[in-house]
Parts: sequence; structure tokens; C-alpha cells
Amino acid sequence: MTHSELSEQIFQKQSYLCVGLDTDPRKLPAHLLTESDPVFAFNKAIIDATADLAVAYKPNIAFYEAQGPRGWESLQKTLEYIPKNCFTIADAKRGDIGNTSGLYARTFFDPSAAGLSFDSVTVAPYMGHDSVTPFLEYAGKWVILLALTSNPGSADFQRQPVNEQELFEMVITTAQTWASPDQLMFVVGATQAAEISRIRELAPDNFLLVPGVGAQGGSLEEVSRRGLTDKGGLLVNASRSILYASNGTDFAERARDEAKALQAEMAGQLAAINVR
Amino acid sequence: MTHSELSEQIFQKQSYLCVGLDTDPRKLPAHLLTESDPVFAFNKAIIDATADLAVAYKPNIAFYEAQGPRGWESLQKTLEYIPKNCFTIADAKRGDIGNTSGLYARTFFDPSAAGLSFDSVTVAPYMGHDSVTPFLEYAGKWVILLALTSNPGSADFQRQPVNEQELFEMVITTAQTWASPDQLMFVVGATQAAEISRIRELAPDNFLLVPGVGAQGGSLEEVSRRGLTDKGGLLVNASRSILYASNGTDFAERARDEAKALQAEMAGQLAAINVR
Repeated sequence: MTHSELSEQIFQKQSYLCVGLDTDPRKLPAHLLTESDPVFAFNKAIIDATADLAVAYKPNIAFYEAQGPRGWESLQKTLEYIPKNCFTIADAKRGDIGNTSGLYARTFFDPSAAGLSFDSVTVAPYMGHDSVTPFLEYAGKWVILLALTSNPGSADFQRQPVNEQELFEMVITTAQTWASPDQLMFVVGATQAAEISRIRELAPDNFLLVPGVGAQGGSLEEVSRRGLTDKGGLLVNASRSILYASNGTDFAERARDEAKALQAEMAGQLAAINVR
Repeated sequence: MTHSELSEQIFQKQSYLCVGLDTDPRKLPAHLLTESDPVFAFNKAIIDATADLAVAYKPNIAFYEAQGPRGWESLQKTLEYIPKNCFTIADAKRGDIGNTSGLYARTFFDPSAAGLSFDSVTVAPYMGHDSVTPFLEYAGKWVILLALTSNPGSADFQRQPVNEQELFEMVITTAQTWASPDQLMFVVGATQAAEISRIRELAPDNFLLVPGVGAQGGSLEEVSRRGLTDKGGLLVNASRSILYASNGTDFAERARDEAKALQAEMAGQLAAINVR
């Protein structure tokens, strides 16, 4: 999906909601456990309940990997089921020397490899340019680079001073020499909302993927006020607050209620920037 | 495997060789392609040919992931086949917020999850302490943290000045507040051998996992001279130079020759430090 197609989806659906498919087999509603693939059955119901409210889906690869080969099969089926007008993110946080990053890129982008064809993958920047560029060789695919993450450990290295910037700012500035805003987004945690204005100055045209609203406590209003652009420019992720809104037979309905509340707030925020 | 058990293996085998199982299905000898699991058949032959010369095996997870569920099955069988007196490393370079790193830890350490029970996993430091500590909760298991990697992109961030150190030095110093040398190693590329003396001052008791000898051009002599300790203290990895020494029916024999040459040089280096 291209930058302008994603923008179009955002304004059409009046939503920049990304639903994080952090599907934990230990948290599934009991009535799904008799399904042949309970994880896929759950994801399918969540997708059916939210596809008109969300512009993106983000399976967190750890949750699938932790189930071995079976988990990868659930992941394949889930990805195939996501409607084509939704942007897909493999939240894998990969990154290795060039030939190995090339294999991770194949894994997530080339369906003839592992049966997967995501639009994008999250990548860790620590190993530098040749750990990132192999992902960019796939035309039309995206790297979503970790910049300023939502967790407490983000202070350990990301916030350290480097050449009169903080490390995450240097990552944002440097990475823009590797790829255009048509292939590069940044991860910025909603718990770091105060920094989003500064990040917008450094990366005016890049989409930001913002996790940390909901269970982690970030403010959607502040993220939106500081981060939205006239192209949209944000994907705000919610996972646990949607997936586990109920663990009864009404789980999909309740997930929809949560997604609907977020989408309604997002529509309001989009209206506010249109006024500017 | 404990720190002292690993040291014991090194002095017993007179080797600190780690064989990197970067097994690429596209590079297998033709006669293996009729096997039901060619990747496992190849790994089995490599392990049989090198198990008395190597103290560790390091499957590079990207190579298995890129084959989807089938790749994970090859990985499970390979790990099971590695002799128990060899240290095992999941070269996965994972790292995420706490609950997700916890799932990656389960994947590689808890056999009831994905059928895998590695001794260690490589972890990226960018997300800080709470992305690393979930791996340390498994008693007897190890984190091998990226510090100074072998690739050109290591200059982009790892070598940048932070608080009168370079970033990789800060990573080494900070991470030692999270774990003892009984659970924490560092990745240092052999192409960065000149820095190993400095790293030894910062981390006198931690094992260093050193890739980059062989195909990437690092010097085993220099790495050993600067990095060996009276406990061993090094695991030097070779992958492609061993795995693909021949692509004929003699591939395992030729792999053994390559491993034997490295082990012989290592025995000489160990003898040299014993003299000190």
C-alpha cells in the first residue's frame, strides 16, 4: 500500500486506528478452544468486528512464534484474512547484518518464502544502515524503524545525548538518508507524547506508528494534536484494550465497541486539523 | 550450561569455536535435496562432522523463519540433535517491550512453548532494560547482547559518542547492572578486533561472542590475543566458511577440515595464554 493510498483510507474511514493482534492463546474466550485453530478463529472474529473502523492490523510476531510451527500457520491465515484495503504490519523488531536482514525481509515480504506478504515490518536501528536497507529493496514495502519506544527502558539508550541530540533524534535524522517517507515510518510510543512535536519537526512527512494508547496509558488526544498532518501521518495502535475487552462469547462485540470509541475520537481529531 | 561448564568444555576440547548454522536451502549440496528435510539432513551431517571440534552451535533464526512452519520444524530437530555438551545460541536479535520480550524468551527457552530449549539468545539493546530482563528470568539461560557488531552499519549509532564513551561502551557498562557474567555475554564483531582490549577492560569476566572471522575477514589471532581470558572468555563463530566449504558429496568432510584448522589455531592461542 502506498503513502497516498494509506492517507486516503484514513480520511475515508475517519480513522487512524491500528489493531494490534497480540493474540495470546492463554487469554482466549473458552468457547473458542474447541476450534481447530483457536488463534485464527479469534483473529478472524476481531477482524470481522473492526475492519470498517481500523486502517491497519499489526500482528505481534512474538505471540505466534511462541507457539512454534502452529503459530506460523495461524499467522499466515490471519494475514490472508485481513481485507486488502487495510495496511499490514509485521511487528517483529528485526535487524541483523545485511545478508541476514535480507532473509528477514524475504520472510515477511516475499510470499514464496514463508507464505507471508506484509506491507511493512518493524526494524530495530542499533546495527545501522546495512541492517535496514535490505528491507527497502522490496518496492512498495515499508520499514517502520524503532525511534522512541513506549517502555521505561527507552530512557536507557534512546534518550541519551549524542552529538547535541538525543539518540532517537539521531536515528530519525540518519534514517531519512536511507529512505523516503514513502517507505519509512517511525515507532514513537504514546507514553512519549510530549516529544512528538519535536519528532514532527525532524520528520514532517513520515508516518508515525504510535503504540501505548490504552493498556500502557498514553493520551490519544495529545498524540493526535502533536502528530497529525494533512496526510494523516499517524497510525495509533491499540491491542489489549480491544482484544480482551471481554473474554466471554461477546468478545468481538465488545472489541468493536472499544474500536468504535477510538475511531469516534479519531474522527474528532481529524476534523480539528481540517479546520487549521 | 553454566559459565564454568562452558569454560571446562573450552579447555577440554581446546577450542572456542562456535559453528553458525546459517543453513540456506538454496545452497545445499544437490544430493541432499531428495531428503524429507534437507535442511535438517545437512545440519545433522555438519554437527556429526564438527561436534568434537566445536563448543557451541548457533542457528541463525532468519534462515529457518524464511521457510515458514517447515523451517521451524527443521530448527526444532536441529536443536534436539546438538550434543548436550555443546552450548546452543538462538541468533535471533530479538528485543521488545517487557511482555513481548517475555514471549520471545518463552519461545527460545521454554520447550513447552515452541518445542525449543536453547541455552542463550542474542538480544538487541536499543529498547533498554525491560526489553532484556525478561530473558534473564530463566535460571541458567543466557542473554547475548549486541554491543559492537561486525557490519559497516555499526558505525552509524554504536560508535557515536555518548557521555564521553561510545554507545557500545555504554551498552556494555549499563547491561552489567542488569545481569552477572553468569547470564550475560556480548556480541563483538571480529572486524572490530582493535576494540576488544577496551571491551575487556569494561567487561573482564563476560564471554564475548565474536562473529566475523572467515567470510567477513576478521583476524582470529588478533581477536584471541585481545579477548581470551583464563576462563576462555570467547566464542568465535564461523558459519559460511565451514558450511559451504564444498557443495559436493564431500561437504561434511570439508566442513570438518575447516573446523579442524580453526580449532588447531585456537589450541595454539589457548596455549599462549596459559604461558602468561
